[in-house]
Amino acid sequence: MKEFDLVVSNGTILTAEAVYSADVGISGKKIESVARELRGGRELDATGCYVLPGAIDVHVHLQMPVGSYQSCDDFASGTLAAAHGGTTTVIDFVVPEPGQPLVDALAARRAEADGRVAIDYGLHMTIPAWHADQASALAQIPKIVGAGVPTFKLYLAYEGLRLDDAQLYTVLKTISAHPALAIAHCENGPVCDRMRTEALGQGQTAPRYHALTRPPRQEAEATGRCLDIAALAGAPLYVVHVSCAEALQRITSARRSGQRAYGETCPQYLTLSEGSLEGPKGGFFVCAPPPRTEADQAALWAALSGGELQIIATDHCPFTAAEKTHAADFTQIPGGLPGIEARLSLVHTYGVATGRLSLRQWVSACCTTPARLFGLQGKGRVAPGFDADLVIFDPQRQLTLGTATLHEQVDWTPYEGLALQGWPRFTVSRGQVIVKEGQFVGGLGQGRFVQRSLSARPTADWTE
Amino acid sequence: MKEFDLVVSNGTILTAEAVYSADVGISGKKIESVARELRGGRELDATGCYVLPGAIDVHVHLQMPVGSYQSCDDFASGTLAAAHGGTTTVIDFVVPEPGQPLVDALAARRAEADGRVAIDYGLHMTIPAWHADQASALAQIPKIVGAGVPTFKLYLAYEGLRLDDAQLYTVLKTISAHPALAIAHCENGPVCDRMRTEALGQGQTAPRYHALTRPPRQEAEATGRCLDIAALAGAPLYVVHVSCAEALQRITSARRSGQRAYGETCPQYLTLSEGSLEGPKGGFFVCAPPPRTEADQAALWAALSGGELQIIATDHCPFTAAEKTHAADFTQIPGGLPGIEARLSLVHTYGVATGRLSLRQWVSACCTTPARLFGLQGKGRVAPGFDADLVIFDPQRQLTLGTATLHEQVDWTPYEGLALQGWPRFTVSRGQVIVKEGQFVGGLGQGRFVQRSLSARPTADWTE
Amino acid sequence: MKEFDLVVSNGTILTAEAVYSADVGISGKKIESVARELRGGRELDATGCYVLPGAIDVHVHLQMPVGSYQSCDDFASGTLAAAHGGTTTVIDFVVPEPGQPLVDALAARRAEADGRVAIDYGLHMTIPAWHADQASALAQIPKIVGAGVPTFKLYLAYEGLRLDDAQLYTVLKTISAHPALAIAHCENGPVCDRMRTEALGQGQTAPRYHALTRPPRQEAEATGRCLDIAALAGAPLYVVHVSCAEALQRITSARRSGQRAYGETCPQYLTLSEGSLEGPKGGFFVCAPPPRTEADQAALWAALSGGELQIIATDHCPFTAAEKTHAADFTQIPGGLPGIEARLSLVHTYGVATGRLSLRQWVSACCTTPARLFGLQGKGRVAPGFDADLVIFDPQRQLTLGTATLHEQVDWTPYEGLALQGWPRFTVSRGQVIVKEGQFVGGLGQGRFVQRSLSARPTADWTE
Amino acid sequence: MKEFDLVVSNGTILTAEAVYSADVGISGKKIESVARELRGGRELDATGCYVLPGAIDVHVHLQMPVGSYQSCDDFASGTLAAAHGGTTTVIDFVVPEPGQPLVDALAARRAEADGRVAIDYGLHMTIPAWHADQASALAQIPKIVGAGVPTFKLYLAYEGLRLDDAQLYTVLKTISAHPALAIAHCENGPVCDRMRTEALGQGQTAPRYHALTRPPRQEAEATGRCLDIAALAGAPLYVVHVSCAEALQRITSARRSGQRAYGETCPQYLTLSEGSLEGPKGGFFVCAPPPRTEADQAALWAALSGGELQIIATDHCPFTAAEKTHAADFTQIPGGLPGIEARLSLVHTYGVATGRLSLRQWVSACCTTPARLFGLQGKGRVAPGFDADLVIFDPQRQLTLGTATLHEQVDWTPYEGLALQGWPRFTVSRGQVIVKEGQFVGGLGQGRFVQRSLSARPTADWTE
Repeated sequence: MKEFDLVVSNGTILTAEAVYSADVGISGKKIESVARELRGGRELDATGCYVLPGAIDVHVHLQMPVGSYQSCDDFASGTLAAAHGGTTTVIDFVVPEPGQPLVDALAARRAEADGRVAIDYGLHMTIPAWHADQASALAQIPKIVGAGVPTFKLYLAYEGLRLDDAQLYTVLKTISAHPALAIAHCENGPVCDRMRTEALGQGQTAPRYHALTRPPRQEAEATGRCLDIAALAGAPLYVVHVSCAEALQRITSARRSGQRAYGETCPQYLTLSEGSLEGPKGGFFVCAPPPRTEADQAALWAALSGGELQIIATDHCPFTAAEKTHAADFTQIPGGLPGIEARLSLVHTYGVATGRLSLRQWVSACCTTPARLFGLQGKGRVAPGFDADLVIFDPQRQLTLGTATLHEQVDWTPYEGLALQGWPRFTVSRGQVIVKEGQFVGGLGQGRFVQRSLSARPTADWTE
Repeated sequence: MKEFDLVVSNGTILTAEAVYSADVGISGKKIESVARELRGGRELDATGCYVLPGAIDVHVHLQMPVGSYQSCDDFASGTLAAAHGGTTTVIDFVVPEPGQPLVDALAARRAEADGRVAIDYGLHMTIPAWHADQASALAQIPKIVGAGVPTFKLYLAYEGLRLDDAQLYTVLKTISAHPALAIAHCENGPVCDRMRTEALGQGQTAPRYHALTRPPRQEAEATGRCLDIAALAGAPLYVVHVSCAEALQRITSARRSGQRAYGETCPQYLTLSEGSLEGPKGGFFVCAPPPRTEADQAALWAALSGGELQIIATDHCPFTAAEKTHAADFTQIPGGLPGIEARLSLVHTYGVATGRLSLRQWVSACCTTPARLFGLQGKGRVAPGFDADLVIFDPQRQLTLGTATLHEQVDWTPYEGLALQGWPRFTVSRGQVIVKEGQFVGGLGQGRFVQRSLSARPTADWTE
Repeated sequence: MKEFDLVVSNGTILTAEAVYSADVGISGKKIESVARELRGGRELDATGCYVLPGAIDVHVHLQMPVGSYQSCDDFASGTLAAAHGGTTTVIDFVVPEPGQPLVDALAARRAEADGRVAIDYGLHMTIPAWHADQASALAQIPKIVGAGVPTFKLYLAYEGLRLDDAQLYTVLKTISAHPALAIAHCENGPVCDRMRTEALGQGQTAPRYHALTRPPRQEAEATGRCLDIAALAGAPLYVVHVSCAEALQRITSARRSGQRAYGETCPQYLTLSEGSLEGPKGGFFVCAPPPRTEADQAALWAALSGGELQIIATDHCPFTAAEKTHAADFTQIPGGLPGIEARLSLVHTYGVATGRLSLRQWVSACCTTPARLFGLQGKGRVAPGFDADLVIFDPQRQLTLGTATLHEQVDWTPYEGLALQGWPRFTVSRGQVIVKEGQFVGGLGQGRFVQRSLSARPTADWTE
Repeated sequence: MKEFDLVVSNGTILTAEAVYSADVGISGKKIESVARELRGGRELDATGCYVLPGAIDVHVHLQMPVGSYQSCDDFASGTLAAAHGGTTTVIDFVVPEPGQPLVDALAARRAEADGRVAIDYGLHMTIPAWHADQASALAQIPKIVGAGVPTFKLYLAYEGLRLDDAQLYTVLKTISAHPALAIAHCENGPVCDRMRTEALGQGQTAPRYHALTRPPRQEAEATGRCLDIAALAGAPLYVVHVSCAEALQRITSARRSGQRAYGETCPQYLTLSEGSLEGPKGGFFVCAPPPRTEADQAALWAALSGGELQIIATDHCPFTAAEKTHAADFTQIPGGLPGIEARLSLVHTYGVATGRLSLRQWVSACCTTPARLFGLQGKGRVAPGFDADLVIFDPQRQLTLGTATLHEQVDWTPYEGLALQGWPRFTVSRGQVIVKEGQFVGGLGQGRFVQRSLSARPTADWTE
């Protein structure tokens, strides 16, 4: 009988379509066999555990400059934390500076990550307003796609960065000519800015005004508008961090008309609510869009279960407690929450254990659909030929979330004190065990940049 | 290296979640390994072909009495035809006679099939009106579930057979107390009967009046009513043979409110339209519900792609050309169409090749979801431990549909002359090649009755 | 200048389209002039008051047998109470006994009312199950229409009385051939009966189980079904006493598809909720459908404002406190609430004064649309040639509702203690002042049976 | 018996709520009496005719500069043509120039109209982009409201003029603080501009590209966005010239959520389709939005009937045949169609005579609702105290539309050759007969500027 380099044995394999008992045989960096009773040079005993594809987080911001701040997890610390939680691939962002060729910006961003990451990573290319009207910039899109970056981030909020409607149309139309996908932050920046100015003018500086000046209707508006313009441009669209039922309804409506529209939500929108912005610690929870209501949480869970939303990512963008609390008013607080590490367990705890999601849906939203929709061709499945990225997840393990147990390089967590049900025992990246019973045993710099590619002509569900 | 009994090599494996190259190693009746470069005592070369789970047809009527007629495929001929088309499991029906205990009816029906079937089969239990009000009959439901029949067919049409609203409520509530699923034929029988009487009274005897007296609105009404009563009873519901956008909309609406509602359509509703009932051959196409419009076809395809409908089955119920054409008026024509053999290829041709469905959706609708939703625990996936039911499907094979090429025991087909894209090269049932390049090489009687079981507490998507 | 018999002067005229100052000149039984500065033999000073068309209550049950009980307002006391509240026309029901020709039943019912009523009245003809299948009964429909009864009540609840689907179809189709309108009580009787039996079997006898065994979903089901069957029959449909958002949604959906569907709600559904069925007085509030939730109330108000519901009637059907409270279990309590007197003021208080409805909508729902939709050709407007039925309503008048102030012949009211805003000062019926500052100054027996007639071919909004 | 100055006798009075026979007595400029058998110094015999409130056209552009062109009907010719067709009030627009105080612009526009108009007129104030960000301009809004101009036109299309989202929010919020109403041209100008540039770049210069570069989805987008921003600002919104089902759906959806949203369509969208832009005469039909499909026409008619759209206006903006046909490409053609004269008859012909609208709905959409929604306090009803603006309309009159019969000062009409059913015999403005059997017998300059005012707190349906 063939000897594999590594065998994961006795576990229950979870995929987006099935739950069954089998061993996984790994040779080098690839899964070579899914079978009964395999034998290997090294064996990981998965008795009592789930064996699922390494989780994929398609929305993270590591060492990202935000005004005068920078998100406090760098590529090393952030990917290490991700690995602890069972994530084996993240996709971060390139934001080209004014005048900077996209290709140069991509190279510069890769230079920050290559050699430092604990797991594989990909990059989305941002098209900021300062590039959107320049034919020379848009002409680089095929080259960027060819370099393994087929996904382009567009902002409808944040003055300077955000695209106006004409730019949106042009960029979406350009993208639609290539095997590429636009992903959009849908909030109406100009209207939010006016509401923020109004609030400050009335002395409303507390963090809770952050939520009140980014109400659900403006998110719904921007979501609907971006979908309308994408339809006019003939482009598929993926909406990041959907936070509320009103925005969700716009996606649902577009999908029902046959439009290729996709949506993501994040653990913070599934578990936190606007009340977290009240009180002295309110500033910690400033992120855009803000947490909403429990009714919105329920709508998001239902949309994940019903297939209206496809992916759960984190929008991980941590700032220190000092940075989150020392601002003069809510508009000065750097926006973003940490979350890269606990995603898989949070969704298991609040989704699977409560019956809101099936095991298959959990795997689909966190592992398989991210791979398919974002063109991670060799990832996201437990099948021969795919990268040997695996999580061995113990569904019985109980632990209390908190900075003491997390590996994120930030001194607080929005989930402090939460009781989790289930946590990874092992994380395997390209055939190598990199986390073992809570210890990182991989190496920083062993992760690789992943060249992604999308089908030229996506069919109904973007199959490869 | 281990020797398997049979290896399917060099094919492209299709599942509901992935498309990849691997071999399948089979030992005895089970898949034992999915891996690269396997070796076996016998090898099936799948080069250039798809390797998918054996197709499952959850809705067939073999040797079924309908009034003074009987459907003309028996368990032998019907399952043999199914095997030719790549179907490795069918689910047929038990219809207990008045006063007959359900258990006895099940035994009698099994006696007709056991020892004759070419492939595995399961049975649904029908609860007719004559049993629905009898506590003694309903008390047998747990025993029937325990005997591997957890699905119960309810009719809202056909006088005598059909349940009235009170019976529906009681039967659905009884079913909901068990790990069982109700499946319903949703047409408003009493209203259709009045419309038929009206038509005959006006001398409208031609086959096209069959469609005009079963309009979409009555199907929608019955579908909506059955969903409403299922919701009141707390029971999940699967609607068979959805034919039109109006009925579909009722299912969609229920699903959006969080109800566990599922729907099936059939190749005839995806490819035929009401015009087929015109002219001298109109009588051939009498089935209930009747074929609808092209707009309805489009709505059904979109619903399959969007996940609003989950399964494509055939409702195979053939009658001879003579039986279909010698009736005095349309109400005397035995209702039903053949279709058990060409389903997989028809959906590939009209769904996949046209871009309406992805390869993954094709497998999901024809193979995997039928297994999951109907409790065929060991079937419907290409993974270790599952039954070695496989189809090796050549997507390049072109052929013209017609009675000359089909193996159904009926002297006509509604699809005569259609050009098909793709056809099975091999069908494997429990590890045995039973169809090889168009030749049946299995044995009648080798198929087995499959004991099915559903989860006691279905979660969001009825995962096992 | 011409002398009128009666002039209503100095008031603010309210109609469904305008609010303006003018006098109303009456000659004999008719309005002859709407003008400035009229002079009459007798003048009613309406300074500070609204002058609106006499209110019309299209849904009352006077001296109606219900099992062994009879509603305790007779034609005299009920119409007298109505007059006090500003209602100048009521429409009651004929319920033919088994075998009784419709014409005879109409004559018998008229014999109970003629000579006793304080105001004008009309009648709806009920088609019970025992007539629905008899061609001889349906053949009388044209004669009944010709006798001034163009509206036919159909029940989907109450065993014996209720029509099954086939009967519904036939009766609706018959009605649709005439200038007639079907009005339907939409609850699923058979399913409610099963739920009631279940409840009693579990010892659940308290009044609150009345509501729990008539849940919104069953009302929605029956409403949707009746609309579907009406569409199949080509008949317009008016749904009485819509109580909840779920049923309302079915009407809205039908209207949006272009179907001629209309709906009524009642003060009890706009102001009471299911909590009223709790506690020792719960039995008082048993009516079908039962009061629902505050969310349902809000949905009903919004539907009135948005035009999805057209009419507010009372379903007045009083039983004494003793009758409502002495039953062994909730199924024995005679169903129905009083309300004939306070409708106009209740809707002013809870609708107009709160801003939920405009003055115009108040008049439309209580006066003008009832006249138009139910064929009261000469009523419901303040315009020359129309019957001089008027209410002079003082919007500033405040009073506390209670049996002490009401004239209904029943010893309790569901609205005991409510503070009302606005009450009639004068009620004028066919030119005669019949209520003057709270005193009845008309005569019992002066009211007349009104022959109603509908347009043969209703246009979009059933204009005359 | 009192002698009136003018009596309209023997006609059938049509209002938005009733149809009845009565005479109308007029003293001076006001209706004084609606009664039977009135006598006057002068009598207009309306035998066989409808007597309805003078029609109101809330959307006209007379002598309006559009680029280097000017619409070719001036205040004299345009209002004279309107009078011929039965319109007794028009509302035109003020467009302040950059830097021009709103008050001055209003005075200047009034100076163009006063002394020239044949009928009464009002004005809307446009808030262009060049004013929207100037606090000094917005500070004038209360003064403009006080001057009888409580309605403000906002453009989402036309570079320079159009407001961006931030401006929209600020202007809508400012308006919402006053008894005022925003009315908006909802097309996405920037996206249309890009599409136009694309088309020209591909040599697509023919008129039909005008429609292709202003597709329904962009109109729907702008409509939905404006409604979303209005909701955020707490402002009611009236959408002008709704042309298609997609835009309509956004209004409907807002209304169902309880938002105060109103919509207008025009005869061109109810009767013309995109095919009119084909061929050598295509340029004539350039207007924005463009005519759509027959399915859109059907949706608009249904929305008028169902109350989702409230008003039919003309957007009258005529250019000569030479101006419409001599442009180098479609972007150079001055946009706009004539239509001020035939509106009432066109809607009678294509709406009432076909059964799509009732008589009451015709009056509501063309006469009464325009008065109510736009604060024409003394107009739009046939009731004492209201302005004696009346049309005596002969529904049997048949004529063929064409420039030969029209009085518009433009040498073509989009309705050339259409057979009309019904036309006015007399038009009465403030008590004076101004059109008599097709002859203008009034005087240019006799019309007056009408100071309009809205309720401070609109209730559910904006009642006065």
